[in-house]
Amino acid sequence: MRSDYAYAGHETGKGMNTKSNIQAETIRKAAKRISPFINRTPILTSQTIDRLFNTSLFLKCENFQKVGAFKARGATNAVLSLNTEELFNGVATHSSGNHAQALSWASSLVNASAHIVMPSNSSRIKVNAVKDYGGIITFCKPTLESRETTLAEVIRQTGAIEIHPYNNEQIIAGQATATLELIEDVDELDIVIAPVGGGGLLSGTALSVHYFHPSAIVIAAEPDQANDAFLSFSGKKFIPSINPQTIADGLRTSLGSLTYPIILEHVHSVVTVSESSITEAMRFIWERMKIIIEPSSAVPFAAIMEGKIDVAGKKTGIIISGGNVDLEDLPWLKHE
Amino acid sequence: MRSDYAYAGHETGKGMNTKSNIQAETIRKAAKRISPFINRTPILTSQTIDRLFNTSLFLKCENFQKVGAFKARGATNAVLSLNTEELFNGVATHSSGNHAQALSWASSLVNASAHIVMPSNSSRIKVNAVKDYGGIITFCKPTLESRETTLAEVIRQTGAIEIHPYNNEQIIAGQATATLELIEDVDELDIVIAPVGGGGLLSGTALSVHYFHPSAIVIAAEPDQANDAFLSFSGKKFIPSINPQTIADGLRTSLGSLTYPIILEHVHSVVTVSESSITEAMRFIWERMKIIIEPSSAVPFAAIMEGKIDVAGKKTGIIISGGNVDLEDLPWLKHE
Repeated sequence: MRSDYAYAGHETGKGMNTKSNIQAETIRKAAKRISPFINRTPILTSQTIDRLFNTSLFLKCENFQKVGAFKARGATNAVLSLNTEELFNGVATHSSGNHAQALSWASSLVNASAHIVMPSNSSRIKVNAVKDYGGIITFCKPTLESRETTLAEVIRQTGAIEIHPYNNEQIIAGQATATLELIEDVDELDIVIAPVGGGGLLSGTALSVHYFHPSAIVIAAEPDQANDAFLSFSGKKFIPSINPQTIADGLRTSLGSLTYPIILEHVHSVVTVSESSITEAMRFIWERMKIIIEPSSAVPFAAIMEGKIDVAGKKTGIIISGGNVDLEDLPWLKHE
Repeated sequence: MRSDYAYAGHETGKGMNTKSNIQAETIRKAAKRISPFINRTPILTSQTIDRLFNTSLFLKCENFQKVGAFKARGATNAVLSLNTEELFNGVATHSSGNHAQALSWASSLVNASAHIVMPSNSSRIKVNAVKDYGGIITFCKPTLESRETTLAEVIRQTGAIEIHPYNNEQIIAGQATATLELIEDVDELDIVIAPVGGGGLLSGTALSVHYFHPSAIVIAAEPDQANDAFLSFSGKKFIPSINPQTIADGLRTSLGSLTYPIILEHVHSVVTVSESSITEAMRFIWERMKIIIEPSSAVPFAAIMEGKIDVAGKKTGIIISGGNVDLEDLPWLKHE
């Protein structure tokens, strides 16, 4: 067990190793495996935005993905990679976010049980979404320790297989398929930008660019208030994320033992943005492009708005990670 | 001059006649004329919604159209139908809504002036949008009388040509192209639903179905609180819209002398929905489909949610008319 890598900045070590076996073929197989179940999401462009920023942006819209986020890709790939015997006792995770919904949904595709440990203070919207997708919820105290001990107990009782939200090769390979599609659909991209939390999406993005379109660079965008990936990347020493305060709730977790080395090797740079930029970028995309994206998805565009990424004259792909937003609680209405 | 037909329920008579010359070829020519400038908008579907309502819905997403609404089609067609001499003094209209933006934008394509009369209480967002598109604004008092006398004065001074927001054949032919695209992209539709305000979109929709896919029926959806089209249609006698109170701000106007006869002849039925249904439908589409639609665009889906349109087992197209929403002022946050 290593104490450097964790979900949410604490040690778990469970099922982690530091050697990635994800090859181009792993990603291609994942794409084929999940294609009957997931959406090939549209790629949207805006002439107005391109003119304002003197660039060509291509938004890979995973907000239109099943369960409203790219997480459906990895979860489906992870579940479908298990055989009938392995699936017999179901799968398990602790999550209060999109992974919980994605794993519940993916398990329902093969009639497997999904055991989801959720903190007791999870929003009713998220709890209901997991229930709607057929997840079996066990509530725990809202601490990481309680989440982990409860998950361990659920696994002991059920024999379910843990599916980590990002530190899992089949999860990473599944998330990589979004960028594979982007590369297939848009020629000659110069830059691909993805947000970074635990690094499942980012490492998958980096691997797909590395294998399928190596002339492009991959840039990660992260909130200033959760800049552990920036620090880990620039200092080349793993720094965990400790109690970060950002509205980009998908980006609060620490990197994992599988995702961090991939990111170190294949990502060009990590840039950070302010909270106000995230809100501004989110609202700008809603107003100009008429699509609903969640705060985490606005982080790459916030980096462009802040001038942190030079996109002038370039073809830039952005992974819009999801669109699950509480419509009662919009960040630009907070200060009124 | 006739006193039965008007913008906003009062007489204007200007440039109106009751005989439509809009043929299939008129619509095809409009489609060709505007195609270099407008977006061929995507058609979105949702397996979740289809399962819930036991139907197949196809949303023609004019919220992704230029200026955020189908109005770009008609305005572009109307402006491009004028010759250089006619455009020399520009075009003019009074509008506080999407037509003002659309006409300003369309005029800018050919470097023509767009003179827009707007009531002094128009929202800053709308005023700024018209300015951004290059419209020349003349403010007037917030009464229809002031709008009309001010417009007449602007036209007298400038020699601009009035482009009525819906009671104009080139406008109707332009709006009809949305449904032409829908019919080209989705085979064997059974029903097409459009919202109805002045009837430009609805009459265009009805003509396209009549000419290009006559086996389908066209159903109009309207707010209970602005049910003049329902009354005019069912009673076969024109009833104006008088000071309607609905959040569907695009649907407050009366039918026109050109649009009403087309609707009487080619529309199957008109159904009405409550204000609460409009809000619920709008929010449902935002949450489930991750797209931003304005209240007027939610009216057809509200009719399905209310059970007013039997879509079970049928292929149903819905024209999502636009996505211009004040994000500070969402209807589901009004009662908190």
